[in-house]
Order: sequence, then C-alpha cells, then structure tokens
Amino acid sequence: MEVGFLGLGIMGKAMAANLLRHGFRVTVWNRTLSKCQELVALGAAVGETPAAVVAKCRYTIAMLSDPSAALSVVFDKDGVLEQIGEGKGYVDMSTVDAATSCKISEAIKQKGGAFVEAPVSGSKKPAEDGQLVILAAGDKVLYDDMVPAFDVLGKKSFFLGEIGNGAKMKLVVNMIMGSMMNALSEGLSLADNSGLSPQTLLDVLDLGAIANPMFKLKGPSMLQGSYNPAFPLKHQQKDMRLALALGDENAVSMPVAAASNEAFKKARSLGLGDLDFSAVYEVLKGAGGSGKA
Amino acid sequence: MEVGFLGLGIMGKAMAANLLRHGFRVTVWNRTLSKCQELVALGAAVGETPAAVVAKCRYTIAMLSDPSAALSVVFDKDGVLEQIGEGKGYVDMSTVDAATSCKISEAIKQKGGAFVEAPVSGSKKPAEDGQLVILAAGDKVLYDDMVPAFDVLGKKSFFLGEIGNGAKMKLVVNMIMGSMMNALSEGLSLADNSGLSPQTLLDVLDLGAIANPMFKLKGPSMLQGSYNPAFPLKHQQKDMRLALALGDENAVSMPVAAASNEAFKKARSLGLGDLDFSAVYEVLKGAGGSGKA
Amino acid sequence: MEVGFLGLGIMGKAMAANLLRHGFRVTVWNRTLSKCQELVALGAAVGETPAAVVAKCRYTIAMLSDPSAALSVVFDKDGVLEQIGEGKGYVDMSTVDAATSCKISEAIKQKGGAFVEAPVSGSKKPAEDGQLVILAAGDKVLYDDMVPAFDVLGKKSFFLGEIGNGAKMKLVVNMIMGSMMNALSEGLSLADNSGLSPQTLLDVLDLGAIANPMFKLKGPSMLQGSYNPAFPLKHQQKDMRLALALGDENAVSMPVAAASNEAFKKARSLGLGDLDFSAVYEVLKGAGGSGKA
Amino acid sequence: MEVGFLGLGIMGKAMAANLLRHGFRVTVWNRTLSKCQELVALGAAVGETPAAVVAKCRYTIAMLSDPSAALSVVFDKDGVLEQIGEGKGYVDMSTVDAATSCKISEAIKQKGGAFVEAPVSGSKKPAEDGQLVILAAGDKVLYDDMVPAFDVLGKKSFFLGEIGNGAKMKLVVNMIMGSMMNALSEGLSLADNSGLSPQTLLDVLDLGAIANPMFKLKGPSMLQGSYNPAFPLKHQQKDMRLALALGDENAVSMPVAAASNEAFKKARSLGLGDLDFSAVYEVLKGAGGSGKA
Repeated sequence: MEVGFLGLGIMGKAMAANLLRHGFRVTVWNRTLSKCQELVALGAAVGETPAAVVAKCRYTIAMLSDPSAALSVVFDKDGVLEQIGEGKGYVDMSTVDAATSCKISEAIKQKGGAFVEAPVSGSKKPAEDGQLVILAAGDKVLYDDMVPAFDVLGKKSFFLGEIGNGAKMKLVVNMIMGSMMNALSEGLSLADNSGLSPQTLLDVLDLGAIANPMFKLKGPSMLQGSYNPAFPLKHQQKDMRLALALGDENAVSMPVAAASNEAFKKARSLGLGDLDFSAVYEVLKGAGGSGKA
Repeated sequence: MEVGFLGLGIMGKAMAANLLRHGFRVTVWNRTLSKCQELVALGAAVGETPAAVVAKCRYTIAMLSDPSAALSVVFDKDGVLEQIGEGKGYVDMSTVDAATSCKISEAIKQKGGAFVEAPVSGSKKPAEDGQLVILAAGDKVLYDDMVPAFDVLGKKSFFLGEIGNGAKMKLVVNMIMGSMMNALSEGLSLADNSGLSPQTLLDVLDLGAIANPMFKLKGPSMLQGSYNPAFPLKHQQKDMRLALALGDENAVSMPVAAASNEAFKKARSLGLGDLDFSAVYEVLKGAGGSGKA
Repeated sequence: MEVGFLGLGIMGKAMAANLLRHGFRVTVWNRTLSKCQELVALGAAVGETPAAVVAKCRYTIAMLSDPSAALSVVFDKDGVLEQIGEGKGYVDMSTVDAATSCKISEAIKQKGGAFVEAPVSGSKKPAEDGQLVILAAGDKVLYDDMVPAFDVLGKKSFFLGEIGNGAKMKLVVNMIMGSMMNALSEGLSLADNSGLSPQTLLDVLDLGAIANPMFKLKGPSMLQGSYNPAFPLKHQQKDMRLALALGDENAVSMPVAAASNEAFKKARSLGLGDLDFSAVYEVLKGAGGSGKA
Repeated sequence: MEVGFLGLGIMGKAMAANLLRHGFRVTVWNRTLSKCQELVALGAAVGETPAAVVAKCRYTIAMLSDPSAALSVVFDKDGVLEQIGEGKGYVDMSTVDAATSCKISEAIKQKGGAFVEAPVSGSKKPAEDGQLVILAAGDKVLYDDMVPAFDVLGKKSFFLGEIGNGAKMKLVVNMIMGSMMNALSEGLSLADNSGLSPQTLLDVLDLGAIANPMFKLKGPSMLQGSYNPAFPLKHQQKDMRLALALGDENAVSMPVAAASNEAFKKARSLGLGDLDFSAVYEVLKGAGGSGKA
C-alpha cells in the first residue's frame, strides 16, 4: 500500500518509520525538507510539496503540530487542496479543535476528495511502538481503506461517526483524567495531613480496584514536587473548560468536573500553568495543618 | 504456627481455610458453632468460646461483620478479654471505625496483651485467593509475628503506625474511589448527550493511561442501569463524609471530594442508597438534553 | 438639552417619557413608527430614520432589545453611521455583549463620533420611576455631557472606563446574584427537610444582616412553586457561564460560582430554562427525605 | 412581671438592663458577683446562686457564653435544677448546640419545670437596642408567658416548635450567610482581576436587588484587608460543617454550601481561622493574574 505522509516531527517521524518497517511505500514531506533524510534511509521517497505528495499518492496522512500548521498545509500555495479530488483520501491525525477539522473537511469534500480526522491518544513512546489509540471520524469508506495503516500505527482504532467526534472523545477522556488527578491530589494531601504516609497510599492504591497507569507514573513525582511537563497544566485546564462548554451546550451538569476545573484555574493563578498538570497537587498543600481544629 | 480464628462468615471462612491449606494449625470459633464443621473437615480444631480460643492460642485473629460484633466478642462474657494477657496477641481484621478499634486496643493493652487492627481491602474472591490487601496498625512486634499469616491471607500487608491509621487509610482510598466514580459518571453522561457512544468511551478508557479495574467492572453494568450492590451507595457516601470530616479536623480543603459527596447525597435523596455506589450515574441522567442551548 | 432616542420598547418608552417630563427636547424613532404617537402626545418630535435623528441631534440615546437590533440600527441603510461624525455623540443603553459594543464603538470612532455604552440594571418599574442604575463606559467627555440625562433616567450612574466594562460589571453582579439564589434555595430546602418552616426562614432572613430585596421578592413565590419569568433561568445561566469565562481568561478560580452554574445547568436539563431563574430551587427538591440516614 | 437573669456578660448585661428600663423586676446572678453592681444601680436585686434566683422567680432567663457554662449553671451544685419544678420556667438564650439544649430540657422537664431554648440573632448593639431576633423552641405555654419579655429584648421572636429547632434555624441562616460571603468574595476578586474597580462593584451592589447590610458592612473592610473578628472564620466554618451534617442526615444535597465550606477550610489551612469570616476573600487572591490566558 502506498501512502503520503506530511509532517515529520517527533510523532510523525516515528509513525512514518513504522509504516516503512511494515512494508508500506511512503512518500514523505516536511516543512524543513532536510528532516526527510532519516526516512529516506529507511526507504521513503520525498515529495517537494504537500501538493506533490497528494498528486502521487491515493492516500495521504498528516501529523502536524497545531491547528495553524494543519490549516496551512491544506490551504496554502502548493497545499493539499491543489491536488486533492475524486478518488483521493486525506487523513489528518493532528490534534485540532472541531472547528479546524470541519473547515478542512468541507474544503476537501468540495473538491471531491474524502476526509478522515484521526487524532490519537498517546505520545512519543506509543508512536514508536505502534501503540497509539486512534479516534477517527468522517468518511467511513476512507476509514475502512486506512485500517491496514491504522493497524500498524496503533493498538486500536475507533470509528466515531461524523467529523468533530474525534476531538470530542478526546475532551471527554481528558476531562475524566483531570478529575482523577484532582481526586489523587486530594487523597495524597489528606493522607499527608492525617499522619499517613502518602507513599504508602500510592502503594495501597496500586494494589486495588482503582490502580491505573497514571497514578503509578505521576504519584511518585508529585510527592517529590517534580512537575516536568508531559502535559502542561494550562492545556489540561483548557480541555476541561472545553469539555464543560460541551456539557453546557447539551445541558449536562457536571459538578465534579467543574470543581476540578476551578482547582486547575487556581493552579494557573499561582503561576503553575506551564508545569505538568499534576502540579494541581500544589494547590492543596496550603500552610499544612496550621488551622487544625 | 498456631492461630485462633474468630468469625466464620463469608470472609472469615475463606481466610481460615487458606491458613489451614498453608499448614497453620487453626482453632476456630463462630457464634453459630455448626458453621465450624466445614473447617473441621479441613483440619481445624474448635473452641467453645472466644475466651477458650485465646486460652489455647498465642495469636488470635478475628474477622467479624461489624463494630458491634467486634466489641461483643471482646467484652462479653466468655470473651477475648477474659483470657488475653502478657505474651498473647489479638488481631482484629474486621472493618470498624477508629473509635471502636481504640476501645478494643486499650482494653487489651490494659490486660497486658498486644493488639493489631488490620482491616482489609478486597472482598470474597480475593479472600479465597489469598489476594487481600491488609492495612495493619498498632503493636509492631505483634505485626512482625503475624507476617507469615498475612503472607497467606493477602498479596500485601502494610504496617501503618498507630491504632486508627488502618481505618483512616481505608477512608482515603474510598474517597478517591468515590470521586473517580463521579468522574466516570460525568464522562459517560457527557458522551451520551454529545452524540458519542458511552460504550466506545469505555473501550477508549480501557486502552489508556487511566484504565483501571473499577471502570472495567462497573462501566458496562452502569450503561445497563444495573446496580447490584457490591458496595452500597449509602456506605460509600458515609465513607466520603468521614473522609471529609477527617479533612476538616486537619484543615484540608477538598472541593472535588465535597462535590462528589453532594452527588452521592443527591442519589440518596432519590432513593438510591441501597443500590451499588455506581448508581450515582443516575443522578446525572436528567431529562436528557431537553435544555439544549 | 436636545437628545435623540432610538427604540421605544417597554424600557425605551418609559425612559424617553421621563426625559420629556424633565424638560428635555426629544426626537424619537422606532422601527414601528406608530409607537411614537404616545410620546408625541408628551411633546416629542419624530425622526423618520436613525440617520435622520442623528442628523438633527447632537446626542442620541438608543435602547434596543438585543445585540442584533443594536447592530442593525447602527450599520444598516439609514443607520446611525450615515450621520454620526465629529461633534456628535451616541449612547447605547441596550444590554449587549462586549464584542457587539466594541464593534459599534470602533465604527463610530472611525467616523469621528463619540461613543458610550451604558447598560442598565433595573427593569420596567425603575425605568418608569427614573431609578435605573447606569453602568457607563467609553468616551469620558461624552459621559460628562450626558450626566444631566443620566440623572433623569437613573438614581445613579457609574463611569467604568474602557468599552466593555459596562457589560463586564453586569456579569459580575449577575454572577453574585446567581450564587445567592442558590444559597437561598439550599437554605429553604434544608429547612424544609429538617422540620423547620421555610416561610419562617424567610421571615428570619428578612430581619437580619443578609436581608435583601431579592430574597423578599422571590422567596414567597418559590415556596409556592411559582416561577413567572422576570429573568429567565437560561439567561441567568448564560451570564454565569460568561462570568466564569471572564474568570478563566484572568485565572480567577471561583468554585462557588462554578457549583451554582452546574445547578442552573441541571435545571436546564430538567426543562426549566424558560422559567424564572429562581426555579433552580426545583433542582434541590429531590424525592424529599426518602434517603434519610 | 418578675424575672431572674443568669449571666451578665456583654449580651446579658444589656438585656437585663433593657428589662429593668421597661419596668420588669429583675433578680440577677453572675459567676463574678461584682458584675451585678451596675444592674443594682438600675434597680436589680441580686441572687447568691442560680438556685436562689430560681427559688425566688417564677421565670428565669439565662444568657451564658458557651455550652459548658450553660450546662454548669443548670447541673452544678446550687444550680437551676435544685429549685426548678412545677410552675416554674427556665429560658436559655445562650447559643448552644442541639444536644446541650436537649440535655438541659430533659433534666428540667423531669423536675416538672418548663423549658424554652431561645438563641438570638444579633450581637452587642442589637442587644442594647432591644433589636435582637429571638429563635425560640420548646414549651409553648412558657413561650407565650415570655412574650412581654421577648418584646422588650428583640424586634421579633419566633416560636419554632420542638427543642433543637432554634439551633437548627441559626445553622440554616449562617449557612446562607457563608455562601453569600463566598459569592461576594468571588465577585470582588473577579472585578479586581478583570480591570473593574471592586469599590465600584460594592457601590453598584448597594443600589440593586441584592443589596444587604452584610455586603455594606463587610465589603469596604475586605477591600482594605482588614478582618477584625466580629464572627471568627473558624466558627463560621464550624456552622457550615454542622449545616452540611444536618443536610446529610436528611439527604439534602447542597453543592454550593459544600463548595463554600471547602473555601472556609482552605482559609483555615492558611492560618486565617481566628480572623473575621470575611477573610475567606484572601483565599481567592492568588498570585494575581500571573496565569492569564
């Protein structure tokens, strides 16, 4: 199977390499073309422009850094739109908002092309290991055609229906994650202020019904006050705000998410927005028991 | 090693059987003595009264249904107190509040005996499989003596310091669990009202960083509206209330737990207190989007 | 002093009549011109179009029903923009969002005119009695010129600085009001479920430090389950959402407003959005004590 | 009418003086008897002990500092119980919890006496001016007998039914007050961080439907960061905790009060418990906008 691949950042490079290793013929493009060399060494061809890649390949995948890059690759001169059309498919795996996704979708469909949005859950390591979770939506025929590629890139792909649903599903998952991070933070703080060892709490949690990889990964670094930003707090808070807005549109009352969101906002007001989202734990520390009853 | 064992309910019977299977000599007692027969078949001796068991064994374990049973076995006629003393240890593995535990502890220490409270995390299946998590506190020397038994009964035991800490640790864990259940419920409700499949949300969650046994177990039954009470909602809410009270004593502000507690109270006001605690999901269902913006 | 007046709805008619009664010369315009007759009887002149009014008067006041009407009167054919310019002032007293206000402000300033936004607090009765509270912002010189008119229309006017601040101040006030309505509702519900008379609670509140006109007005109708919409719940919830969004921009954590907002959203999900905002009380009623401890 | 009066602290002295000025014959007692002199100058007689006062007077009023003083005056040697009986009434106007009140009530009724609890709303100034609000409960016949005295001491008295209801009504009122204080604090903080003047917000609030004496009194001192403790924050938080506990008993979900309670707890954790309850405003100040979006 032949695919184009636009965008060779940390994620894109790992994903394109996986496709090559599994026998796909891949034509790559990157804004800084020199970054293509590593993949040429693995057998990739190079396209001079996004348009050139689309002209050559029936299917083109994009993995770009943000909404503006995703729009630029499609709408700018020498962009995807110039060559997309009947019989060609475009799959954007970047993480973008629903509005960006819709704009791209409409432009491509107007040209007669097919479009799938397919944001992923997972970062560098899962990308390298082909263990991403793929949240796809849009053109079902194109999705079905892409399954062999998705099987290489991820451990599981989901088809979620109409355009926008991929972004929405990510918001719901991140909202639950944000509330769980607050639940853990409160528990650690309660343990610490009640004469229990927070480290022992982590050990107990890890043996029970609510054991999960996030608690296992973040818990120990939180106890050390170390918040190296894997997922910045301000982005987590933005996702909670957007999830609450989605709830607002649909009249869904979510008091626990709302309380969690306010805790993340408090963390932002304390200047913690660029740290990892687990830094919300700092909000709870207070002056340590000086107000005991 | 020889141990006494008081209380042969669902949990106690499984635990005593495990000890016998691992070569312990066990003398059992139960309020309804006929229940001892099953264990006699496995090699157990029978004591006529709690006092008789303690008289015979250096170490006695109790696993009773509630605080009043735990108190009765110690303080009533023919109870533990009549024979406990220097050189003997008593280990109460029942789930009781800190006050009950303290009362038992003081009485036994006054007689010269040693006491450990050791509530467990896990129910019938883990008890049968020797996979309980044991949250012990009290006399460290007695705890160390009991490690061989704890190794048979649980996959892990923790020594948490002074009497009361076992109960407190359970409250902290249950508080986190209650907030997580609310986070899941809100996420399922948001998905459902936003045109996403709640079942797919469960599938996505199960592949990611916040996957955990509780979501996997409870999620599908929640979607079916089935709330068979493994852990009744009113007990979960009581534990959240007690955890918040512990926070109040120590001036720990926990807004997410507080919001979760109010949701459980709302569920109680709707008559759901005797169902499983996952029935808090029902609180979020509302009139289904009739108030869309 | 001569002023133009655009918009003779319930509010506008009362305000223009007040100006006439206090000796102002007023030229009125209304989309349905026949509505001008009542004011002609009080001495008003009539302008055929907004542009005609602005051409004639140095100062023109508008009181329109919503943002789209406010924009239309300025930007449409025969609108304010056609005649506004150096030496003329335009004062929009409609309740509009900050973005609408900014758009109007920029267009008028580009033509050389002066602009003041001046939303009001208070409805029909205060408008008739000249007892509005006026939240003005924008051009300070124009504001100072308008003080004689504001003194007739309101009991007090405030100059709040740059355009947008009038709308923001209304949001802050409405946010506090929404939280207070929730506080009252929870108190009435607690009284009712604890064997106290909610009516007596209202009587006690009215004698103390937190007595306020809203509790006095809304309390009795809430106890009767009567929610005639003076201020629809969906609008109150929208204002709380916007106030929380303003807090989000500025990293202000507001957990009580967030909890109140979720209660209003719950009310919307129960189909109460078109009733008075005091209908949030219904959310708290539950199944009345069936879950007593 | 002749009454006994036990307890001449700030409140009690003002109240007894009011009774004397309105023609009541009053026999006073105070633990430190020298404090009685001021009232003797106004015409009071002195009793040597609580028992002596009760022996002399058909009706005895008490106004004591806390539950332990209230219990001591009744149950200690030479206490009220020694002389109370058929045909005599005892009215405790101290602020005590429901349990204390019930204990006193039962003891007095067992002796054949009548009992009314009558905690008050209002502090020194209203006590001096006879403007207290009296929340009475217990024996209705005794209440009716006391109306002439209550009319002198307060601007209004309420009979609330069974013993305990006076204390409960105070909790409900204080809970609403605590949520309102959080609403005000959040509003001031939002104004301050959004480029609006908090002082102007206070002025606007004071002209509208939610104007109330508490906002008027506390608002300006909050803006100055001055928290002279009229009502200590730790007592406000205790009352919110007790009100939430009352809700818990009766399955009343109160998310806004719960969020407010957590804010007061946060204030305690920052060491603000002994300041005025308006110091909860400090919790919201954060690092002032450093986390702007």
